[in-house]
Amino acid sequence: MYKLIEGKKIADQVKAEIKQEVSDIREKGGKIPHLAAILVGHDGASETYVAYKQKDCSQVGIESTLFHYEDDLSEADLLAKIEEINRNEEIDGLIVQLPLPEHISEQKVIEHINPGKDVDGFHPVNVGRMVIGLPAYISATPAGILELIKRYKIDTVGKTCVIIGRSNIVGKPLSILLSQKKYPGNATVTVCHSRTKDLALTARNADIIVAALGQAEFLKSDMVKEGAVVFDVGITRVPSENTKSGWKLIGDVKFDEVAPKASFITPVPGGVGPMTRVALLKNTLLAAKKEIYS
Amino acid sequence: MYKLIEGKKIADQVKAEIKQEVSDIREKGGKIPHLAAILVGHDGASETYVAYKQKDCSQVGIESTLFHYEDDLSEADLLAKIEEINRNEEIDGLIVQLPLPEHISEQKVIEHINPGKDVDGFHPVNVGRMVIGLPAYISATPAGILELIKRYKIDTVGKTCVIIGRSNIVGKPLSILLSQKKYPGNATVTVCHSRTKDLALTARNADIIVAALGQAEFLKSDMVKEGAVVFDVGITRVPSENTKSGWKLIGDVKFDEVAPKASFITPVPGGVGPMTRVALLKNTLLAAKKEIYS
Repeated sequence: MYKLIEGKKIADQVKAEIKQEVSDIREKGGKIPHLAAILVGHDGASETYVAYKQKDCSQVGIESTLFHYEDDLSEADLLAKIEEINRNEEIDGLIVQLPLPEHISEQKVIEHINPGKDVDGFHPVNVGRMVIGLPAYISATPAGILELIKRYKIDTVGKTCVIIGRSNIVGKPLSILLSQKKYPGNATVTVCHSRTKDLALTARNADIIVAALGQAEFLKSDMVKEGAVVFDVGITRVPSENTKSGWKLIGDVKFDEVAPKASFITPVPGGVGPMTRVALLKNTLLAAKKEIYS
Repeated sequence: MYKLIEGKKIADQVKAEIKQEVSDIREKGGKIPHLAAILVGHDGASETYVAYKQKDCSQVGIESTLFHYEDDLSEADLLAKIEEINRNEEIDGLIVQLPLPEHISEQKVIEHINPGKDVDGFHPVNVGRMVIGLPAYISATPAGILELIKRYKIDTVGKTCVIIGRSNIVGKPLSILLSQKKYPGNATVTVCHSRTKDLALTARNADIIVAALGQAEFLKSDMVKEGAVVFDVGITRVPSENTKSGWKLIGDVKFDEVAPKASFITPVPGGVGPMTRVALLKNTLLAAKKEIYS
């Protein structure tokens, strides 16, 4: 019988811990963590995500400020705003909600954020420091998965780990983190992608599988060995007649088929997703405490 | 019959190309590339390496300057020197020969170098940009191996690649580069290390093997499949009665056993080694042309 990795429950625990820590800081008269978010334009999904992030902050006592601009904001004005926030000692963390309008270079924007406030962990300095093994802000999804591995005390040492997907924010950083010389790590990691031959065979050899390719129900039971640990990073929204909203979320794993073979598995929704949200809170707390960059 | 990957010959070709390009720049009255090297103390190996690098520069017409200090140089003075070179527009590339005396933080020194002059590719900004897929200075050994793959037109797409060793300057960056979405890349890469179980089995499954663990003659014939491409990054100096110098270099691959099974294989010496030396020249040329950072 498989064990469900209850991301939602763990995320609530982590939030309670963060809330306690912020409360302790407040009592001692310390600096209350403060996250700034920049949102450009009125993309519906982006507005929702930013609202969630603000709500998460308020739940744990982290201050948050939203800078919301119309989508005709010039790149120069956005960069100037970022520089202002970089200099503002009141603000500990800064995220710029992506995607940005086409006339603005996302990469230029990311590189303008002070790495010490880059709580999304997207700045090359943070990516590079992570790879080298130096303290760094880890991006949300890899951080969330590592936290789940720790909380469920999943053994990774010497384990065969297959990551499906080579994105900059999930597959690549997670492959480095899981093969690094400390726990959770020391796994033998293989990164699979669209050009991989015999993906099923490779996956079937894995003790730990991370499905992060963004293709609904891609991972089937014949691609998973008995007793594997399965993390599902995918979120695809599909129409449904069985929900009030008229849609439901499905992952990259065909859960009903795969779960009976797994030892541990994350559901979608309620698995990796909620953990990515708390990762941002955790990074903001680290930023306020100046634990990564002093 | 295997094909020997003649690193020395290719390195000479690349040097001839660089020499031609520098000569063209000179004729057009352009900026002659200029490499600065900082050496602290009198470690024999370090002195030799720096001398090689200067000789390589002079052979291709790249200017070089050596800043040589006694090993009682303070960290603050070294950092000040680096800042001076960072500001010096005459100098395009800067390397600090490692190791440094114990009282100096190597990481602090590396992070002090302007990423635009960091032709060793060790600065977190360059590592991060490489991972993200942005233009960056790639460190010498991965760059040398990629160049050999290109020159020998070795197919990497969809190939199974096993890298043995997870160092910051070889295994980790090479794993990212060989799985990236362009040639040479698109391979399915597995990183093996000291905690890997069944390393022989994993290696035996690989179309391409990179041995970079620093253990003499580690890779034996029973760890290699018929037709594999083998890159040997190891260099161990052992005593020998058959050479004038009294020692010889051996690699991480038991060459005599493995070569007959390989389709392509690098020898030691004369394989990957010479390519790492030209990688530095190439990065210095890129720096002078401001191709990575404008």
